[in-house]
Amino acid sequence: MDSSNEILKHILKNSIQSPTPLTYSFLAPNAKGLTNASTILSQHPDAYATETMAKVDLSPTRKPEIEIAVFAAATESFSQKNLNCDIATSLQRFKEVIQGAKNADLRVRAYISVVLGCPFEGYNVDPHKVAEIATDMLEMGADEIALGDTTGMGTAPRTKELLKCMTAAGIRNEDIAMHFHDTYGQALVNTAVSLEHGIRTFDSAVGGLGGCPYSPGATGNVATENMVYFLESLGMDTGVDLDAMADIGSWITKELEKQHDSSVGKAVLGARSRLESQTN
Amino acid sequence: MDSSNEILKHILKNSIQSPTPLTYSFLAPNAKGLTNASTILSQHPDAYATETMAKVDLSPTRKPEIEIAVFAAATESFSQKNLNCDIATSLQRFKEVIQGAKNADLRVRAYISVVLGCPFEGYNVDPHKVAEIATDMLEMGADEIALGDTTGMGTAPRTKELLKCMTAAGIRNEDIAMHFHDTYGQALVNTAVSLEHGIRTFDSAVGGLGGCPYSPGATGNVATENMVYFLESLGMDTGVDLDAMADIGSWITKELEKQHDSSVGKAVLGARSRLESQTN
Repeated sequence: MDSSNEILKHILKNSIQSPTPLTYSFLAPNAKGLTNASTILSQHPDAYATETMAKVDLSPTRKPEIEIAVFAAATESFSQKNLNCDIATSLQRFKEVIQGAKNADLRVRAYISVVLGCPFEGYNVDPHKVAEIATDMLEMGADEIALGDTTGMGTAPRTKELLKCMTAAGIRNEDIAMHFHDTYGQALVNTAVSLEHGIRTFDSAVGGLGGCPYSPGATGNVATENMVYFLESLGMDTGVDLDAMADIGSWITKELEKQHDSSVGKAVLGARSRLESQTN
Repeated sequence: MDSSNEILKHILKNSIQSPTPLTYSFLAPNAKGLTNASTILSQHPDAYATETMAKVDLSPTRKPEIEIAVFAAATESFSQKNLNCDIATSLQRFKEVIQGAKNADLRVRAYISVVLGCPFEGYNVDPHKVAEIATDMLEMGADEIALGDTTGMGTAPRTKELLKCMTAAGIRNEDIAMHFHDTYGQALVNTAVSLEHGIRTFDSAVGGLGGCPYSPGATGNVATENMVYFLESLGMDTGVDLDAMADIGSWITKELEKQHDSSVGKAVLGARSRLESQTN
């Protein structure tokens, strides 16, 4: 929580701008978290770009949007271990956060963890339960549901089944983001299945950073470099500079002393060094 | 070449057996290579299981089949760098090898390298040229064509295009094996595309070993552990014990002092150690 506060203050204080739209998700597990965010935002009234301001602003760069994030879980075991309460109680708490955020005109992203596999309940995650939690949070006012394959146990057939269930529950593809971990190397395969279903929002982490404390030895989130390479290979325009992203991945993994887990990042840097050694 | 001889001698001398069918590919770039293989095989007449013998043999384990492998290239630049001759000349040489092998009743696997991207010619590899080379080698008597994405530059749309081209040239899916490298993390996505097209034979290397000397910093062949996990997730029976394969990957990468590049292998071993620490 402290780090969420610090990052938000840093973004606002330094008026960080970007040529492409950026959003910072502030994790607010309860009403106190939302109060923290609101307090920090009120201390930087100029820095916070509301959507209306961004639209009027014709300058080539714009300020990042700030949104509030809540994290529910798809299984009772994971909810107990991660949030110290059952799913129903967690949703009660999130209702207060979501409605408070909406009253403050803040966008809300609602995550659901372990949607395709739980470290405690295995593959037995009910997609109908996921759809039910998602519907509840959308009804509370959440703007987007991020379906988290926290353990990376998601497979192509079960990703398809989950998304079919979401559609059957009346949830629009535009309101869904997929959040894949590459623990079992299936992130891009599951992304392909999701694209086919009509999903267009995908989470990723540069250098494949992140991970799950419940999966020792496991790799983290799918690497942004791999995701960008894949989407561009399908003819999609991600707006991301792959070369620059490879540099960031190499830099940040060294800074954090973490393993560089992006095959694409390493291949891009390798190809570049080969080219440089040939031209020199 | 020396190592091919050594491995073949080792397999024959130690009468290595397996409960599932195994094949050892002996690389024979020219007629001399084939003579080497034939000489070694003639020194171990009992050890070499012909197909007929294997079918009569009702014991639960069987001897590995020995096949001859030739390596053509899909681009003139790669052929020159790798084989020191143009594609037409290489095919002349392979004709002698393939026909000699067939006369000796040996199966022949014909590889075509850089079918989806060349370190010298980039993405500009003509799928029609690949189909032409494949047809030539099948007509010479090759039993199987292995399409090698040596650089890992293959993408889903171009994999699909290549396979369509092969079908249009009259080549049967049963005669094609796909050989993907995971350099850009696309191996399983491309495998999915190939499965959809009807291909059922895929190469892989335990621990993601191998690689391409023309791609520094790049990861190697797609890891067997990842391939097995993916195929099993689709409901296919690979006949491979994933747990045992993860152990082999961990062991062999240590022995060779290479990086362990299988995310699945690492995740399987991580999950096992978590379970063991819980039960102890």
